[in-house]
Amino acid sequence: MSAEIRVDNVSKADPAPKQAGGIDATRLISIILRIERLEEERKAIGGDVKDIFVEARSSGFDIKVLKHLLRIRQQNPADVEEAENLLDIYRHALGM
Amino acid sequence: MSAEIRVDNVSKADPAPKQAGGIDATRLISIILRIERLEEERKAIGGDVKDIFVEARSSGFDIKVLKHLLRIRQQNPADVEEAENLLDIYRHALGM
Amino acid sequence: MSAEIRVDNVSKADPAPKQAGGIDATRLISIILRIERLEEERKAIGGDVKDIFVEARSSGFDIKVLKHLLRIRQQNPADVEEAENLLDIYRHALGM
Amino acid sequence: MSAEIRVDNVSKADPAPKQAGGIDATRLISIILRIERLEEERKAIGGDVKDIFVEARSSGFDIKVLKHLLRIRQQNPADVEEAENLLDIYRHALGM
Repeated sequence: MSAEIRVDNVSKADPAPKQAGGIDATRLISIILRIERLEEERKAIGGDVKDIFVEARSSGFDIKVLKHLLRIRQQNPADVEEAENLLDIYRHALGM
Repeated sequence: MSAEIRVDNVSKADPAPKQAGGIDATRLISIILRIERLEEERKAIGGDVKDIFVEARSSGFDIKVLKHLLRIRQQNPADVEEAENLLDIYRHALGM
Repeated sequence: MSAEIRVDNVSKADPAPKQAGGIDATRLISIILRIERLEEERKAIGGDVKDIFVEARSSGFDIKVLKHLLRIRQQNPADVEEAENLLDIYRHALGM
Repeated sequence: MSAEIRVDNVSKADPAPKQAGGIDATRLISIILRIERLEEERKAIGGDVKDIFVEARSSGFDIKVLKHLLRIRQQNPADVEEAENLLDIYRHALGM
């Protein structure tokens, strides 16, 4: 939870931007509040994603492999294939 | 954009979970699609936050200080004050 | 480069720990200097690693694949193989 | 510990670079071994730094504040002062 902003700094009646120390306090407060609201939403989504991974684990899926799969699905399939072929060549060169 | 999932793997008519290689393919597809949808939302929010920082910079605000302020606002004010007092003591001890 | 520490805070002649604001200034200075020296070493090693990657790129190696190979080599080969088999099963289930 | 490299891939007697799948296996092995040796050194330094933080904590120092102090000492003092002044102005504007 974010620290309070004493909203009396931003009086609705007086739209003229409040100045404080040479800065536009009204604009600063608006920027801070908008970012904090978005960060709350982002945090909630992070929680939802975490819940699905908990569901996946309890359904027997391997989370590390699942995350690898999710990363691969964001890449161009041809690039994925090329990288995997190269990896095999490098592994072979090292006798792995 | 995520790689296609050939949805024919998941036939609506046949609710019984599709097995593939001993795993519940229907459940896997559901998990993947839900996570990807949430990650898209998260990514969009990240873009919105970035836009506000661009607005803040063009309004003359210092982004590093703004981010420090946002971090402080997530902490207990008494903890912030204590940490700042300690920092002053440590700096004084180092002659800074 | 770290900010100066006014070493006169730490008089060699007087080993008794210097107190400043209730803290052991001599101990704090020693801790700070040792950590900073180690961080300098760590930074230098990071530079050396970067140089080798530059060499690798100019020798035609794919850096992303090289880093993947380095990660795999830190893991137990049996775990790597199991994860790769599972990944194939999951990909097959998604029709990828 | 990194997976073995079957060094017979790299015969000392035959300095000519070994080719494997169209890549210079000798160069790849040299690159891998050098990076792994440096990463081992880097890891050891990380352990040493961790030990000093354990020592600092047991001596009563606040680790978060110590890390903040270390970060500040890497910055130009004038920049640090300016950022702190700005932070105060922003906090004042928010009535914090």
